Amino acid sequence: MGIPAEFGIKIGKLPVGRLDQITDVPGVSVSHVTLKQGSIQTGVTALIPHKGNCFREKCLVAAHVINGFGKSAGLIQVQELGTLETPLVMTNTFAVGTASTALIRYMLEDNPDIGTTTGSVNPVVFECNDSKLNDIRGMHITENHVRLALERASGETGAFEEGAVGAGTGMCCYGLKGGIGSASRLVTLGDITYTLGTLVLTNFGKLHELVVCGRPIGEEIEDQGFGNEEPDRGSIIVVIATDLPLSARQLGRISKRAQNGIARTGSITANGSGEIVLSFSTANRISHYPDGDLIKAELLHEEKMDTVFAAVCEAVEESIISSLLHAEVDESLKGKIRSLRDYLWKE
Amino acid sequence: MGIPAEFGIKIGKLPVGRLDQITDVPGVSVSHVTLKQGSIQTGVTALIPHKGNCFREKCLVAAHVINGFGKSAGLIQVQELGTLETPLVMTNTFAVGTASTALIRYMLEDNPDIGTTTGSVNPVVFECNDSKLNDIRGMHITENHVRLALERASGETGAFEEGAVGAGTGMCCYGLKGGIGSASRLVTLGDITYTLGTLVLTNFGKLHELVVCGRPIGEEIEDQGFGNEEPDRGSIIVVIATDLPLSARQLGRISKRAQNGIARTGSITANGSGEIVLSFSTANRISHYPDGDLIKAELLHEEKMDTVFAAVCEAVEESIISSLLHAEVDESLKGKIRSLRDYLWKE
Amino acid sequence: MGIPAEFGIKIGKLPVGRLDQITDVPGVSVSHVTLKQGSIQTGVTALIPHKGNCFREKCLVAAHVINGFGKSAGLIQVQELGTLETPLVMTNTFAVGTASTALIRYMLEDNPDIGTTTGSVNPVVFECNDSKLNDIRGMHITENHVRLALERASGETGAFEEGAVGAGTGMCCYGLKGGIGSASRLVTLGDITYTLGTLVLTNFGKLHELVVCGRPIGEEIEDQGFGNEEPDRGSIIVVIATDLPLSARQLGRISKRAQNGIARTGSITANGSGEIVLSFSTANRISHYPDGDLIKAELLHEEKMDTVFAAVCEAVEESIISSLLHAEVDESLKGKIRSLRDYLWKE
Amino acid sequence: MGIPAEFGIKIGKLPVGRLDQITDVPGVSVSHVTLKQGSIQTGVTALIPHKGNCFREKCLVAAHVINGFGKSAGLIQVQELGTLETPLVMTNTFAVGTASTALIRYMLEDNPDIGTTTGSVNPVVFECNDSKLNDIRGMHITENHVRLALERASGETGAFEEGAVGAGTGMCCYGLKGGIGSASRLVTLGDITYTLGTLVLTNFGKLHELVVCGRPIGEEIEDQGFGNEEPDRGSIIVVIATDLPLSARQLGRISKRAQNGIARTGSITANGSGEIVLSFSTANRISHYPDGDLIKAELLHEEKMDTVFAAVCEAVEESIISSLLHAEVDESLKGKIRSLRDYLWKE
Repeated sequence: MGIPAEFGIKIGKLPVGRLDQITDVPGVSVSHVTLKQGSIQTGVTALIPHKGNCFREKCLVAAHVINGFGKSAGLIQVQELGTLETPLVMTNTFAVGTASTALIRYMLEDNPDIGTTTGSVNPVVFECNDSKLNDIRGMHITENHVRLALERASGETGAFEEGAVGAGTGMCCYGLKGGIGSASRLVTLGDITYTLGTLVLTNFGKLHELVVCGRPIGEEIEDQGFGNEEPDRGSIIVVIATDLPLSARQLGRISKRAQNGIARTGSITANGSGEIVLSFSTANRISHYPDGDLIKAELLHEEKMDTVFAAVCEAVEESIISSLLHAEVDESLKGKIRSLRDYLWKE
Repeated sequence: MGIPAEFGIKIGKLPVGRLDQITDVPGVSVSHVTLKQGSIQTGVTALIPHKGNCFREKCLVAAHVINGFGKSAGLIQVQELGTLETPLVMTNTFAVGTASTALIRYMLEDNPDIGTTTGSVNPVVFECNDSKLNDIRGMHITENHVRLALERASGETGAFEEGAVGAGTGMCCYGLKGGIGSASRLVTLGDITYTLGTLVLTNFGKLHELVVCGRPIGEEIEDQGFGNEEPDRGSIIVVIATDLPLSARQLGRISKRAQNGIARTGSITANGSGEIVLSFSTANRISHYPDGDLIKAELLHEEKMDTVFAAVCEAVEESIISSLLHAEVDESLKGKIRSLRDYLWKE
Repeated sequence: MGIPAEFGIKIGKLPVGRLDQITDVPGVSVSHVTLKQGSIQTGVTALIPHKGNCFREKCLVAAHVINGFGKSAGLIQVQELGTLETPLVMTNTFAVGTASTALIRYMLEDNPDIGTTTGSVNPVVFECNDSKLNDIRGMHITENHVRLALERASGETGAFEEGAVGAGTGMCCYGLKGGIGSASRLVTLGDITYTLGTLVLTNFGKLHELVVCGRPIGEEIEDQGFGNEEPDRGSIIVVIATDLPLSARQLGRISKRAQNGIARTGSITANGSGEIVLSFSTANRISHYPDGDLIKAELLHEEKMDTVFAAVCEAVEESIISSLLHAEVDESLKGKIRSLRDYLWKE
Repeated sequence: MGIPAEFGIKIGKLPVGRLDQITDVPGVSVSHVTLKQGSIQTGVTALIPHKGNCFREKCLVAAHVINGFGKSAGLIQVQELGTLETPLVMTNTFAVGTASTALIRYMLEDNPDIGTTTGSVNPVVFECNDSKLNDIRGMHITENHVRLALERASGETGAFEEGAVGAGTGMCCYGLKGGIGSASRLVTLGDITYTLGTLVLTNFGKLHELVVCGRPIGEEIEDQGFGNEEPDRGSIIVVIATDLPLSARQLGRISKRAQNGIARTGSITANGSGEIVLSFSTANRISHYPDGDLIKAELLHEEKMDTVFAAVCEAVEESIISSLLHAEVDESLKGKIRSLRDYLWKE
């Protein structure tokens, strides 16, 4: 969806994909399960990297920790082997264990070899702490919620909701309502146009820091008296998907540029923030059971990376602003959190 | 306990602690829950780092990934902040999620501020894949098992069982029965004697690689016809505890020496091995709610590290051999795994 | 000096030090040697971390590689030991070897123990590639130039020149003249006011990317027809100095926030950029010959880091803009590079 | 050459290359310049990775720092880009700058585009501290020595000297004479036999630690009264070359196994040791000026890595012992250092 047209905000110079979402990358699908009732303000978001069997046909992948005040699961193996063998799940901090277990069960069903004739499976789960709006101590996410999100995402194609949905339900960002945001960019090399898409779960930053397209809107809002001086305990998860033929090393390099996109929105990358980036490519899949000893691959020459880096910066910046602009005012039992919509809409 | 005296094996030159276990480090306690029935051959081992409130009084800590084919939880935050705020739990690969959830609940009980007035908590859980002997797909570990291990460890002092117990129940190492092993060394600086202890969960290696005190016993056994040419899918977890006043950076340095200890037993650090090391110091604890802006600390001068490094090498090597020598022959439904005891005992 | 007042540019919210330069940190001094004659457009900048013997009283330090297309020297040991034992030298890419040798000789003079009764010394040298303006293949920097910069810096106190001087002589940044920039911020904790200062050597980015305080001035200039579509082969060096009592681990954390400051000026962190950050603290020095086994230290509690992070973001952003605004139009034999002064001045 | 047959020492199980040296890898050549006169006991060793233009046809590469008390040059870019674009030079610690400068000049001659129409070049130089035997403060290595080593290596094919030659001239290892050692192993996958070779520069360890094939020969020698209780200030450099088609990520993984090989000889990886590993593959070269945007590559499937890991462990272990067994007793002005030859020979 990207940033709604009525706001008149355009971020970056590169061409945008059809949906302006991570699902512009062929094969990628996303879906949510939202829990929203009284003090329960949380959920699950699932992302399927491709339509095949993720365990048997692994995507190349890399992760990057911008700031490690976070509890995401599965990154150690991702870093060592450079392969992704499950869908991605996002949820609240205390539900990572439950989501990991549910994701393992989901994988076991389709893969009777896991844990018997072959090794184990590495579930990848991301989290942010939604305790400001959600009764996180209640641990309301069950394995069924995770399962449902995975099933929905498997069936899904195309556009998905952004804002305070799924894992984004209870998130706050820059003192306003945050959540899920997404964007995409097109990268043309020679005759081929590739897609790079980003998905963020935003839960970081203080109001006065917020900058939208260079405008210090956070300060402006704060001058209107809506400050908020709690310490920043939030986080941001960034997922980057592409069909560009990048190696795991190159995916690590693009992951690092997410920080530039985040910084453009004003962040100082606070102490209490778990800022984690995962990038995967749907090209050059690695078979769990290879035909031979060698794998043939096509990889981008390093000199061509700059456009890809620019795409990451733009798409991450836009995804964050999009998460803010899709999230409506939230009045849960734990308090009212305003939406950036209200401030930018006025004009 | 260390290596039983009857084997006549002495590893290293440094003096050994009273129990020759990680619990020689004051405040550290360890306990197990063992599930052993038919195809269920698994368990949980819990380690309490000190007798206070682990969340309110955090130990300094570092982690090191020797080879990242593993699914341990909690290391991202450990690396960023250099503090440990929960006990450690070890279990099988598919039980990491359940153990994380149980460990969160355990922490929430004593700390009503977590998830309400303060941030979240970072559960640290380690795993190895016991699918060779255990029905890992059955996911038999419940939150109650984890809870029980934590409660037992809280009450425990002193010696604990080694071998095929707790998380070690279903583990295989060098083609023989592996499991839990431990050792300790004393490091005297000036007038003060410090203790460094190690705990390992061994599940790695091929028989022909095994070396005990320089003797290629693995080859010798294999020459007797007990070879085993499955690919190596195992792992090793190493926990190092000490009351030496080491910084998080220094704990990272000692963590890296675990690889030397492992290598002395013959390992090539195989592709499929999750080799993870965590080191913590019980000195210089960090208060969650500090008195002021500054923390006073005493730290070891870098020039004094060599004895500590030697202690790590010796204790890790001994812990591995100890895990092998405490583990008895195992005849589960999934097959018979011999014990190193049988081969060294004969003589 | 900071950004000249006539430009009316204020970056950030934190109070600024007396000089608005890295030399606001007590003990830190900086000086330049500039070579500017025909095709020779290069130089050396030296930074002395404190007024004592740097080898005998080491500062705590950390380095961070944002993008490693660079040839800086000395970072391996800095990362391992967390100590800085020489002044810092900056120069062009092909002069790193010469500068390292000169810095070693400089250290040997005052320290007859190095290489005889004690170990070696670790020279830290940074570089950017000034080949766009400078005859870098001519290798015009000699050991004497480095020596002279070090001697000048030793005698120096207070303000130093910014812009196209010293190592910055031949640098280009965002398609304009770059070079040396600096800034400082004050951080008050309780009753004590600490200083954090930054020094940058800017040689990165494309014109259209440049953003000053949120304004896309680069695009505006390019629309006037001054584009420049060469690939970006530049780099940026960032040095952060402070008297805050930070551990090496914490200095690593603040180093990572330099990327936010750089990103605020529009950078995508291009493939060809060597983006290296080094941060040191003048508090808690480590004696080469310690009195005993233990070192007493005072360290900042992690919860207090956010103001320090904000100081880094602000000072790095300002330093970059300051480097651009102090650098005058350059007409060397190799071509004319415009200055940002000309564009911002007009108004 | 490997370990001379008269010692009757066989390390490992894998087949050995024709020369049992790193030059068994097709295209790799090595040569030395030795300075040995009075208090001058030092030198240079150069390694050419392939017979083409190293800058235009880059090898894939990775580096790994086991312990970072070292001053090697060029590793930052190696880690970022995964490519090697110069020969490797080894020398003493204070000659790294001179060697870097000489290596740049050597590269500039064949590549008029460097520093003019294309970017810069990244010289890779390794070092150990030979101050125990050599007048390192005298800085006796000149650019000409480096140049000569490079020229000799370019012309060279086949076997090269080991022991106290080239960079190894003044090195001590385990309290005995160290220096240059090398070995190779063959790895057969399907119908193709690949070669993996290692070269070490040994300058680390204490006598009592030394283990040869599991035998604690160091302790035995020390019991004869030849102890040496100076602190360990040495280092080890390990270079691994192969024609196996490994990615930069995979080369990083094999680099980590060098520590196992080192540990098998008894090392605790002391505080004062710069232990640096660099691995390169001569397969899949990357053109500086690519034909198109994409590179075609063949890469080894991860499941096939274990034999490669075993080859690294064996070849590194053998290389270290070989360096000791080729180094003769040294009686320089600074003292007499015994050779392992004398102790193993007796039998």
